[in-house]
Formats: sequence, structure tokens, C-alpha cells
Amino acid sequence: MSVDLLRELAAVLPPEALVTDPDVLESHRRDQAGWALAGVPRVLVRPGSTTEVQAVLRVASAHRVPVVPRGAGSGLSGGANAVDGCIVLSLTRMNRILELDRRGLYAVVQPGVINGALKSAAAELGLWYAPDPASWEFSTLGGNLATNAGGLCCVKYGVTGDAVLGLEAVLADGSVVRTGGRMVKNVAGYDLTRLFVGSEGTLGIITEATLKLRPRPPRATTLVASFPTLVGAGAAVTEIMAELRPSLLELMDRTTVRAVEAARPMGLDVNAAALLLARSDAGGEQGVAESTRMAAICEAVGATFVAHSSDEAEGELLMGARRFAFPALERQGSTLLDDVGVPLSRIPDLLAEVERIAGQRGVLIGTFGHAGDGNMHPTIVFDPNDPDAVARARAAFDDILHAVLELGGTITGEHGVGSLKRPFIARQLGPETHRLHLTIKSAMDPLGILNPGKLL
Amino acid sequence: MSVDLLRELAAVLPPEALVTDPDVLESHRRDQAGWALAGVPRVLVRPGSTTEVQAVLRVASAHRVPVVPRGAGSGLSGGANAVDGCIVLSLTRMNRILELDRRGLYAVVQPGVINGALKSAAAELGLWYAPDPASWEFSTLGGNLATNAGGLCCVKYGVTGDAVLGLEAVLADGSVVRTGGRMVKNVAGYDLTRLFVGSEGTLGIITEATLKLRPRPPRATTLVASFPTLVGAGAAVTEIMAELRPSLLELMDRTTVRAVEAARPMGLDVNAAALLLARSDAGGEQGVAESTRMAAICEAVGATFVAHSSDEAEGELLMGARRFAFPALERQGSTLLDDVGVPLSRIPDLLAEVERIAGQRGVLIGTFGHAGDGNMHPTIVFDPNDPDAVARARAAFDDILHAVLELGGTITGEHGVGSLKRPFIARQLGPETHRLHLTIKSAMDPLGILNPGKLL
Ligand SMILES: Cc1cc2nc3c(=O)[nH]c(=O)nc-3n(C[C@H](O)[C@H](O)[C@H](O)COP(=O)(O)OP(=O)(O)OC[C@H]3O[C@@H](n4cnc5c(N)ncnc54)[C@H](O)[C@@H]3O)c2cc1C
Ligand SMILES: Cc1cc2nc3c(=O)[nH]c(=O)nc-3n(C[C@H](O)[C@H](O)[C@H](O)COP(=O)(O)OP(=O)(O)OC[C@H]3O[C@@H](n4cnc5c(N)ncnc54)[C@H](O)[C@@H]3O)c2cc1C
Repeated sequence: MSVDLLRELAAVLPPEALVTDPDVLESHRRDQAGWALAGVPRVLVRPGSTTEVQAVLRVASAHRVPVVPRGAGSGLSGGANAVDGCIVLSLTRMNRILELDRRGLYAVVQPGVINGALKSAAAELGLWYAPDPASWEFSTLGGNLATNAGGLCCVKYGVTGDAVLGLEAVLADGSVVRTGGRMVKNVAGYDLTRLFVGSEGTLGIITEATLKLRPRPPRATTLVASFPTLVGAGAAVTEIMAELRPSLLELMDRTTVRAVEAARPMGLDVNAAALLLARSDAGGEQGVAESTRMAAICEAVGATFVAHSSDEAEGELLMGARRFAFPALERQGSTLLDDVGVPLSRIPDLLAEVERIAGQRGVLIGTFGHAGDGNMHPTIVFDPNDPDAVARARAAFDDILHAVLELGGTITGEHGVGSLKRPFIARQLGPETHRLHLTIKSAMDPLGILNPGKLL
Repeated sequence: MSVDLLRELAAVLPPEALVTDPDVLESHRRDQAGWALAGVPRVLVRPGSTTEVQAVLRVASAHRVPVVPRGAGSGLSGGANAVDGCIVLSLTRMNRILELDRRGLYAVVQPGVINGALKSAAAELGLWYAPDPASWEFSTLGGNLATNAGGLCCVKYGVTGDAVLGLEAVLADGSVVRTGGRMVKNVAGYDLTRLFVGSEGTLGIITEATLKLRPRPPRATTLVASFPTLVGAGAAVTEIMAELRPSLLELMDRTTVRAVEAARPMGLDVNAAALLLARSDAGGEQGVAESTRMAAICEAVGATFVAHSSDEAEGELLMGARRFAFPALERQGSTLLDDVGVPLSRIPDLLAEVERIAGQRGVLIGTFGHAGDGNMHPTIVFDPNDPDAVARARAAFDDILHAVLELGGTITGEHGVGSLKRPFIARQLGPETHRLHLTIKSAMDPLGILNPGKLL
């Protein structure tokens, strides 16, 4: 049976697209989510075209073999982790930008194109591909789409799904569907584009995407403010969002600030409860006016220190602290990076809950993230060689997810459910909505071969 | 059987929620799409709660009776038109704003709330509900959601679907699902919110929505420019969109300008091929800078007249011409308002095709619409008492849809497929994608009772 599988795949793929070398398979077993389980794949395929993807899925359907799609493998939820005996389907060879239309403001890309490659190509036309996960230099657009990746600029420009005009996807049975198109507004039929976006490879393989390009925004002004209380920082976030449209609004809690300052002293206020970073790209005088107003809001709700600058180098310096948040926490031990979301008004409650859990479980948790979207990354730091610490870290991870659900939030704001958070998905969705997910999944993938054990 | 149906509905609904009066039924048979067919309903129900909607759907499922959901009936595609023997399910009694959260930047509403009522309530908090279909004073949010309604501000702020955080919907079998939540970013599970948005009542009844509120944008500056050629106007649109973020970008062709000028002389250039209206709400100096730049772009691509103003009254005067476009065309005869979309770069081609069709079929067609989104409304004007003119108008309507598909566009940008454009949907989607629509529809509504004969 397994020999048949390989023979049939060999019959429909060029030799370079079929890999059984155990070392290569080993390097394609998992993504970047440390704790998620991973099985052993039977084979790795690297199709070069939609037709080859179709052929692979027909063979997989005939043999009822699971197919695990994979981009750069930079995911943080175990979404691209292999299951035993599966075909790992890597899209990295399909890495061409097929079309770049300045007048139509769109790009047509294959799924293996790196996010940053599209950004550069768009910049050559004076345009901008907005979605900016921190992994933009190595993650693929297919992976970004399949996880609906977020980033720093979402607060003003939306997530990956907001930048998609249309998709081509191969279904479990090998048929190809095209959704959306090249037009901005389109209500002909169901929004299947959005159904595929964020579906983590469980409904189809994305083989092409038409993505929205935009004009590049004006140069940004940057603001940093530190707050003696979490409630003050939370109030600054809600007041800024109710009045202005910042192009970035990030938060770091005390533990994170201290980790950054310990690894790379830059004079941050290590006694503040939280540090806020904000940007306005409204442009010119208006940008200055907006950041002046943001500074005033921060002061009014109790910020002890506020600085802003329209100088680009100075702005990058201020942003450096935020970009260094996760690496700085990583220097303190093994990390378990979480990704949760709450309604905007509940950010202080979330941070307080995380502090409580850290105390109760006796673990270090640094929290930072996209405050303007209510999307935070509590990061549990622990000693991997101490079994008790590992157990407490895991317990804290679960506690945080429970707390988030109590706050009316989500177990994942941008990293996805994957296999890591699968035990929690039914709880968040509730029985009826979970059942509807299963109804759609089994209608579209009746044999259950597409990325089984993920998301649902 | 039909007596049973009424008895069973009466058992689960209060008396005021069950209507069989033929006059009332007659007034609930159709929406505003003149040409779409409409059947005769068996009964009208006006549930007051989600529980009552569930009860209606359980009875309908048991009897396999079609259910046609209905908001204000202002639709333009026959989407709310009755089918023979159906239950018309009006959501207008479910018209309460349940929650309005300034700090969380969201509103929770029942589906029967009028768009304008939410706008006013949000304004009282200093906030803004952005989606602005021209029917905002009378259409319901449920109808806006079910059609994914657009409007003037979409070009910067997105369509109705972009303003939704979560939904509650009742499925065909009477079960209730909740999608999304109150948080901005959320990737836990499939994007079922977007699946219901724009599904025109064929997948479920929307019984509650959590909608995004925003800060009110700064005061806008307004620009008007007239162009001797369609290609020039098209170039202005693409150049403006590639460089700036206008908060409105509308176009009127010569036929429309002449109709407006004939009905209400305001000194418009009746010899121009097209008139463009644009706004910037970047604010303050930046707003002025943006509209100055837009004016320069218009001049560079050949505009013969350009005027802009940051005075609000003057701006409204300039906008008056655009708002009067459809009423002005209506004064010239019966109208058939179309709604199509093309990639941004194809707007001049679309306008040229419409001109060609008008000439070929010997009909008057005025085209106006949301140029910045490529979403235009060719409006066929004809004499309803001349059967030959009626036939030519219908033929022109079909010609336009065919032309749009040839241009890689969509048969509907914001009004929906309904029953009016159902004959064209399979052609736009292609057989595989159409089949996938049917797969999802029959998985979610196996008895086919939800708004049959619409969209698919
Ligand atoms: C340092 C670092 C920073 C990060 N920062 C961010 C961030 O700011 N925001 C954020 O959202 N994420 C972030 N991530 C997570 C990750 O980079 C994103 O989820 C990214 O979108 C994954 O892309 P990938 O190509 O690596 O996909 P993979 O990890 O290979 O796959 C991700 C998921 O998508 C599926 N998939 C991949 N390609 C396809 C396809 N063509 N069709 C169907 N399914 C497919 C896989 O099966 C899997 O379920 C970060 C990760 C790292 C390591
Ligand atoms: C003068 C005028 C101007 C207009 N301008 C615009 C415009 O600028 N942009 C635009 O997009 N449209 C416009 N429209 C069209 C129309 O107003 C919109 O489509 C609007 O969203 C319909 O809302 P409604 O409450 O009238 O819905 P209805 O017409 O009653 O129903 C529309 C569709 O939604 C379904 N539906 C209604 N409520 C629900 C529910 N709760 N759950 C599930 N399904 C439901 C119905 O079955 C039907 O298929 C205009 C119409 C008029 C008459």
C-alpha cells in the first residue's frame, strides 16, 4: 500500500518533487511550536504547479493518506506538524510572483513567495503590501494566508485576510476552485476567500493568491509612554483608539521591560507597570498633531514618562525595545509563547490575570503585544531541565487560556489553533458552532485527509 | 398541511408575530428590484427574539416550507422576494441596540436596527459606525450584513463585512451558532462570520451582530474634476489610489451629468466625458495637502476643470450632484439600476463597453458609482410603455453583465445576486467553485428551506 503510494506519486511528480530521505523528512516534521506533538511523515512532496498539487491530492484521496501542507514551517501552533504516515506537502517551490499590477493595485502570487519578497517587489513600484508578521523575512504568503497572520500594522491596516482579493485552492479531491477576483468589491456568492483564510490547511491547499497593494503611508512619528499602573496603560489604549487611528499601538509589561533592559540596557523605566509604544503615520503636520494628542492622552491617564519623535532613526530606536521583547525573554530560559485576544476594554484585566497566574504557579510570565487590537503574547519563561518548572509552565499556559475565555476573549489572535490549542477550541466555540465547523469540514473534506488533528 | 403549519406557528409565537392578512402579505412580497420575480407567501412572521426565530425554523423544517428572511425590503436584487407558499420572516421587530461599548469600540445589535439608528447612537459617544449604503436611513443592519452592503466610504473604510466582529445566527434546523466575538483579532476556527455576511439569507438567519465602532474621522475636503476622456478619468482614479487614501472617490459619466444638470442646473460641465468627486479626511493641513495633490494628479492626466474646498457647505454642494445621480436618471424614464465591479485598471474599459452597448441596443445608460473600488452602477433608462424599449433594456442589462465578466469583473459589487442575477452566478464562479457553493449550502441547509432560488 505504502509502496503503491510512492509509486503513484512518482508517476505524477518530477523526481526532484518527491523526497523520502529521512534527514530531510526529519527537518520537515515540525514548525516552531516547541510543545506541539509531531508524527513521522511517509514522504515529502514539493510540487511545482497547481496541476502537481492536484495530482498529489488525487493520489492521497485514493489512498486515504493525510496531507499536511507546509510553507516555511515558522508557525507557532504546530499547524504544519506532521502526523504519522502523512504526505508533507511543501509549497516552497511554488515561489513566483506571477503578476504585479500598479494600476490595478494587486499582486498575483504563488503560495511559496516569502512575505518580504512581495514587500520588496511592491516597493519597487512605489507600493506597499501591508501585512507584517514579525516573521515577514522568512514566512510564506501561503502560510500567512492559512493562519491569517497578523503583525504590528494590523491596528490600522488589518490582518492578512484584509489584504486578499482572491484565491486559488485545491480541494481534498483534487479539484481546483477560484474565489474572489481582482476587484476590490465583490458580493457574487459566498465569501469562500475568507473561509480558506485562517483554515490552517484543513479545507484546501492554497495554490495562488491575489493580494491587495496600497500606497505607501507617510513617514511615521513614534511615541513611548510608561505607566505606573496597568489600568492606566489600558485606559491610554482605549482612549487613543476611541479618538485616533494609530498605525501601531504596542504594549510591554514590567517583566518584559526588565528582560529587555537586562539584556540590552537602554534606560527603560523598569519600575513602570507597562510601557506603551505608538505610531501615527497620518503624515506631515497631522502626524505630529496625532502623536502630540496621543502624548496628551497618555499624560491625562497617568503616564509618568512620555517621549515622541518624528525622527526616523529615533523612532526605530524606540521600536527596538519592542522588537527585542521576545528575544530578551528567551535569554532568561525556555519560553512558551502564547497568543490570546480580549476585547479592547479588557486589556488591564488580562494583564492582571496573567500576573495572578504567574504568582500562583510560581513562574515568570512576560506579556507584550498588539494592544490596539487587544491581542497579547503572554510568554512563560521556565527552566527546561526542572521537571517541576516545566509542569508549572504548562499549567500556567492552560490557566491563561481559561482566563481569556472567562474574559470573553479568544485562545488565539493571530498564531492559530494548530495542534497546540486544539484541546481548547470546542470550549471557545461552544457545541453548536463547533458542530457547524465539523459540518463544513466534512462536507469539503469527507475523507478527512487535509491536515487532520489540526484546528478541530 | 398548511393549516397545520399555521397552527404550529401560532403555538410558538405571540399573536402579533403571526400575520396572514393578504394586504400585509402583499406588501411583504418584494424588495425594490423592479424586475425580479416574486411569489405569494403563505404567512408573515415577525419574531421578537432569537428563541422565536428558532421556533419558526423548527416548524419550517418539519413542514419543509421555505423561509424568506426580510429586513426593510430595500434590496435591489430580489433577495427578499417571496417564493410561493413561503414563510416571510421579518426581523424588523428585533430592533434593539443591546450594548454600546465606547471603551471596547463595539456595538451589539439586533438585526432589525436601522443603519442610521446605530450611526446616531454611536455619534452620541463620539464614535462612528462607518458602513454607509445610500439606504442608511431605512435599511436594516441585518439586511446590510446579509448583502454585505457597500457605500461611499468603503474606499477607505471597507464594506459592511469589514465592520463585523461577530454574529449570532439561527440555522435551518433551528440551532443557534455564535461566531467571532468582541475582540478585533481572532483566528480560533473558520471565519464563519464572513461566511454568513453576504450569504443573502441562504445559510442562516442573522439574529444578532457585534459591530465595530471607530473614532470619527476629521472633517473632509472635497474635490471635483471633469475629464474630456474616459481614459483620463480612469487614469486619475488609478493614480490617486496608487498614491493616496481618499475617503471617497466617485465617478459620473456624461449621461449622468446631463441628467443631473437637466433636472437641477448647477453648472456642471455637460460636455465632459466624466466627472470625478473625491474627498480626503486626512485632517487639517494633511487633508488640504492630499486634496491639493489629488487636484494636481487630475490636472496632470488631463482634467479640464478642477475645484476643491475644505468648506463643509461647499463640499456638500459638490456632493449633491453625486447624490442626485440616480434620482435624476429616474426622472428620464423607468430605470434598471445595475451594480457591477471591475479591477481598478479596467474602469475606462467598462465605461467604454457600456457606451458601446447603449449605442448598439439604442438605449440610454447613465453610469455612476464608486470608482475608487471599481464598483459602478450602469443605469438603463427606458420607456416602460414601449415593449420594444423594455426588451432592448433587458438585452442591454444582460450585455453589460457579459461584458463585465469578459473584463474579469463581477456581476455584483454590493447589491447582491438575489434572484435578479442568479442566471449569471454559475458563469462567474465556474463549475468547480459553483459546486463548492452547493456543497456548503446543502451541508448547512440540507432541506433547502432557507431563501431558495436566491444567490445559487
Ligand atoms: C520569529 C517569529 C515571529 C513571528 N511573528 C508572527 C507575527 O507577528 N504574527 C503572526 O501572525 N505570526 C507570527 N509568527 C508565526 C508564523 O510565522 C506565521 O504563522 C506564518 O504565517 C506562518 O507561515 P509559514 O510559511 O511558516 O507557514 P507554516 O508554519 O509552514 O504553516 C502554517 C499553517 O499553514 C498551513 N499552510 C501553509 N501553507 C499553506 C498553503 N499554501 N495552503 C494551505 N495551508 C497552508 C500549514 O499546514 C499550517 O497549518 C512568527 C513566527 C516566528 C518564528
Ligand atoms: C435608495 C436605495 C439606495 C441604496 N443604496 C445602496 C448602497 O449604497 N449600497 C448597497 O450596498 N446597497 C444599497 N441599496 C440596497 C439595499 O438598501 C441594501 O442591500 C440593504 O443592505 C438591504 O437592507 P434591507 O434591510 O432592506 O434588507 P432586505 O432588502 O429586506 O433583504 C436583503 C437580503 O438580505 C436577507 N436578509 C435580510 N435580513 C436578514 C437577516 N437578519 N438574516 C439573514 N438574511 C437577511 C434577505 O433575505 C435578502 O436576501 C440601496 C437601496 C435603495 C432602495
